[in-house]
Amino acid sequence: MTFTCPFPIQDYPHVLLAHGGGGQLMHMLLEKMFFPALRNPFLEQGHDAAMLQVKGARLAFTTDAFVVHPREFPGGNIGSLAVYGTVNDLAAAGARPLALAAAFILEEGFPMDDLWRVVQAMREAAQRVGVPIVTGDTKVVERGKGDGVFITTTGVGVIPPGIEISPQRARPGDVVLINGAIGIHGIAIMAAREGLEFERPLESDSAPLHDLVARILEAGGEHVHVLRDPTRGGLASALHEIARSAQVGIELEEAAIPVWPEVQGACELLGLDPLYVANEGKMLAIVAPEVADAVLGAMRSHPLGREAARIGTVVKDHPGQVYLRTRIGGLQVVHMLSGEQLPRIC
Amino acid sequence: MTFTCPFPIQDYPHVLLAHGGGGQLMHMLLEKMFFPALRNPFLEQGHDAAMLQVKGARLAFTTDAFVVHPREFPGGNIGSLAVYGTVNDLAAAGARPLALAAAFILEEGFPMDDLWRVVQAMREAAQRVGVPIVTGDTKVVERGKGDGVFITTTGVGVIPPGIEISPQRARPGDVVLINGAIGIHGIAIMAAREGLEFERPLESDSAPLHDLVARILEAGGEHVHVLRDPTRGGLASALHEIARSAQVGIELEEAAIPVWPEVQGACELLGLDPLYVANEGKMLAIVAPEVADAVLGAMRSHPLGREAARIGTVVKDHPGQVYLRTRIGGLQVVHMLSGEQLPRIC
Repeated sequence: MTFTCPFPIQDYPHVLLAHGGGGQLMHMLLEKMFFPALRNPFLEQGHDAAMLQVKGARLAFTTDAFVVHPREFPGGNIGSLAVYGTVNDLAAAGARPLALAAAFILEEGFPMDDLWRVVQAMREAAQRVGVPIVTGDTKVVERGKGDGVFITTTGVGVIPPGIEISPQRARPGDVVLINGAIGIHGIAIMAAREGLEFERPLESDSAPLHDLVARILEAGGEHVHVLRDPTRGGLASALHEIARSAQVGIELEEAAIPVWPEVQGACELLGLDPLYVANEGKMLAIVAPEVADAVLGAMRSHPLGREAARIGTVVKDHPGQVYLRTRIGGLQVVHMLSGEQLPRIC
Repeated sequence: MTFTCPFPIQDYPHVLLAHGGGGQLMHMLLEKMFFPALRNPFLEQGHDAAMLQVKGARLAFTTDAFVVHPREFPGGNIGSLAVYGTVNDLAAAGARPLALAAAFILEEGFPMDDLWRVVQAMREAAQRVGVPIVTGDTKVVERGKGDGVFITTTGVGVIPPGIEISPQRARPGDVVLINGAIGIHGIAIMAAREGLEFERPLESDSAPLHDLVARILEAGGEHVHVLRDPTRGGLASALHEIARSAQVGIELEEAAIPVWPEVQGACELLGLDPLYVANEGKMLAIVAPEVADAVLGAMRSHPLGREAARIGTVVKDHPGQVYLRTRIGGLQVVHMLSGEQLPRIC
């Protein structure tokens, strides 16, 4: 345990936006500051949710602060995002959502009408999932010390017996599946922020994925090794985290990764790579090869998985690294997001 | 279910600091906005923690956002407060703390050294309690959209068999106990904010009360009806909530309520009433008369209960109201806090 700040004054003396961006700087903050201080076996699982044992039950427990800007966007608002985001973190632990808690930090002067719309969206989202918001808190800060509303949601879920989901379980030969096209949430937010217009309006893919995950688990059972919702930092950063946790390599097929043309176009315009753009309605499943077709079929049979695809393979070469086999056949390193691409995307 | 904002434009069109103050306006916000929208039996318990049933176990689940200003104060900082505050909400449900989650909203430009001190305080506080921080999240907002650091902590605890703590269980004849002098945290924060000086420095009473509660439950068992930590809105507002929940009256003895002279003095100087000042290391216990002496003795045997006192009685008269028997023998209504006394006290 070190008792001096692990960020030497000449490196990063102050918090940068990128420290919350899901990429290298965020991992540095976690690994140098939070993990050493708060060290315990739960945090070291490197999972979005911790697993707790209570009597015979295994519970998943996860928290997320939502600061998305703008707070209302095509396809949702901060309220629906706060419900679905936490439900998806539970789902990515293989858990059925049981209950949510919500804590609000309001800025003095925030219009009650705006708050009402946010709360209504939470109500609708919670009803759609069938999970109650059972407890909460409200704080108010002075004008200029907040930004309308921030919401932290925390979820508790129950992991069914026999299900063992963990980033460490990715193993060579496993198949990487995703339930649809990437980058939609990030580009929808970016477009709302920058006033970009599309021929058909682009809505965030924000959606609750617990039901899709139930189908994945039904089809693949114990052969489903890893689930992960690739939010901040996008597909590339999520796979990086998994490759590092399991000390395996991951190879992606560029041509197999679904990207909508309007997302591709907006990315080119904005100088972004869809591999790094945040998703809120996507779930990665890394499964044993013998169940890959069955799981892919199960995903495609679900309304939120119609565009599901097999996008890559886990390999034993280059452990901790992600590679992309490009359309022209080259093999290219995929780095973890460095710096900040899209601040306040969730 | 109403589908228009329940705050007519002429009343409270915007969020005020008082909407987070623990008093009447906060209750109006909860009762008009949050409870109708998110209606479920858990929220209606009116408890700081919700009770969840999982297999044979009863879990307490509670969340709190911490925005205290200044973030470092005599006796603690926002990090220790965030741990103890949530541990105390679990304790007030009769639960032994099992695990905490922590979500950070950082402001761009916040010094890493300051964050380090906050995280170290969380580490020490969690170690003192013996509860791990098992999962977390970090977001960063732009300069001027936050205030250094806000922390939301969420706790899960286990309620031992036979324990049934609920504000509805207060019944006429019950005795109201408290573990010590009131108003210390609020005045310590206020003094730090306003640069007040005392002869001996006044430190916040912020402390973890789970162990004190274990002793209370050992001594009183099922005869312990209500536990409550009187934070925002102070002793008066906490007792009001209980009186309303149980539809009973509560009578306090002014002379029996412990108030330190320096807190009394600072309150007079600042125009505050100690009954409304926030506490972070105090626990109210409302118990059946037959165990009152045993519970009081158990509280006094604990380092955090040496000044424990019997301060009032639950009565069947004036249901929903709190009265104070003054030193000169009069009976005076104690209202719930109206407006905002001490913004950002926790």
